[in-house]
Amino acid sequence: MAKRIESHQNRIFKWVKSLSLKKNRDKEGVFVAEGLRFISEIPNEWCVKLFIVSEDFAKGQDISTYEKKAETYIVSDELFTLVSDTESPQGILAVCKKQEQPDETIWKKEAPFFILAEELNDPGNLGTVIRTADAAGVDGIFLSKGSVDVYNAKVLRATMGSIFHVPIVQNVLLEDVASKMKENHISLYAAHLRGENFPYELPLDKACSFLIGNEARGLSDKGASLCDCWVKIPMPGQAESLNASMAAGLLMYEVVRQRLK
Amino acid sequence: MAKRIESHQNRIFKWVKSLSLKKNRDKEGVFVAEGLRFISEIPNEWCVKLFIVSEDFAKGQDISTYEKKAETYIVSDELFTLVSDTESPQGILAVCKKQEQPDETIWKKEAPFFILAEELNDPGNLGTVIRTADAAGVDGIFLSKGSVDVYNAKVLRATMGSIFHVPIVQNVLLEDVASKMKENHISLYAAHLRGENFPYELPLDKACSFLIGNEARGLSDKGASLCDCWVKIPMPGQAESLNASMAAGLLMYEVVRQRLK
Repeated sequence: MAKRIESHQNRIFKWVKSLSLKKNRDKEGVFVAEGLRFISEIPNEWCVKLFIVSEDFAKGQDISTYEKKAETYIVSDELFTLVSDTESPQGILAVCKKQEQPDETIWKKEAPFFILAEELNDPGNLGTVIRTADAAGVDGIFLSKGSVDVYNAKVLRATMGSIFHVPIVQNVLLEDVASKMKENHISLYAAHLRGENFPYELPLDKACSFLIGNEARGLSDKGASLCDCWVKIPMPGQAESLNASMAAGLLMYEVVRQRLK
Repeated sequence: MAKRIESHQNRIFKWVKSLSLKKNRDKEGVFVAEGLRFISEIPNEWCVKLFIVSEDFAKGQDISTYEKKAETYIVSDELFTLVSDTESPQGILAVCKKQEQPDETIWKKEAPFFILAEELNDPGNLGTVIRTADAAGVDGIFLSKGSVDVYNAKVLRATMGSIFHVPIVQNVLLEDVASKMKENHISLYAAHLRGENFPYELPLDKACSFLIGNEARGLSDKGASLCDCWVKIPMPGQAESLNASMAAGLLMYEVVRQRLK
């Protein structure tokens, strides 16, 4: 049975609210998933610590599926807005355990396909990269130190739940991941203004990975030097560059296209 | 020579500030372009009504190029923040005339390539679509009634200046544009969950156009019924859909790929 939380001074309520800060999410190893669609993406086996639903939500929905999965708390609509990150909350959130670190098996797949990002800072961009990677069947995403936190509410929202599907490793050193790629014969590509090969010419049916640069600064020289090949995304129009997540999506989907055959 | 504006009560200052509202932009036929990079994209022949720069900006830069092009006003840094739309303003903005309505020549190109959007509401998405369309060499964008205003500050920011390069028609009726497409033998495609053809199989070297649906609701039945063919973007992974601007970008770039040959 669901329990009620009556006050914003309640210990559990305060704990959930504290998770809007990265340092608290890091310490507790959890994050907040909000909204019906997002929560419907939580896999059965995923560890959920608790649910919070608003009174209004509990009136309109059968909440017994939530109660069976984890401790469920009902709060007034007013309290819910205090703990919600969105402007028009749907009245349901879940505190979920973070992803496990992916184990060595991700390196052992046949023709694995990875994304690396160097200091990707915009939450919307990172979320879109994760969602697109999930659609494209990417085997893992590596984020360098200095990237925005995957469990930031805006990132999560833009993933539309794909956070539950794609293995993600945060705070990596690019050199380490690049060495690991080399060791496992996985080509590392990056879009670069001085790139000479169109993505359509690359053997992307083979093991491959793409390094994405920061939105404003692009790839660092160090990042660029780690790549096996620079790729040129054609721009027959007048724009001189693409949004970082768009460039990443176009490259991921060239892999999809080549592997369809 | 630049003039000074000393007070937020100044008539010109108040006028520029009023342009944050769509109804005032519509009445005056102008919009505000902000930031150095964005303003550097303004073509020589484009009509600029005036520039406003902050004292700080004027100290660090030669503003004579702006003064030659249009009346230039200097305001204190404090006043600039009042008229700026960004959190950390660069200290320069321009009031520009809106795009002219594209004339009939856009229909007469060889193998034209258009984008239609149905109630695209997210400013970041629309901006990204315009920027990507500019990179891909799209000949025109048609936005249905109910789409977010192209001259909204957030849309403009995400275009990175591509607003100056791609012809855009706002407030269209989809049926009208679809008839015009038919009349001119331009195939109309849309990504659709029930699509049967991958984009890679379509004859996109020929005249073509893509209809993009609303972010949350997707294409309306009416919108979908206007299309000659529904397209299936493959999703070998677990995500069931893509962000609207990402889907649009993938389709636009399939045109680019096919036309490279």
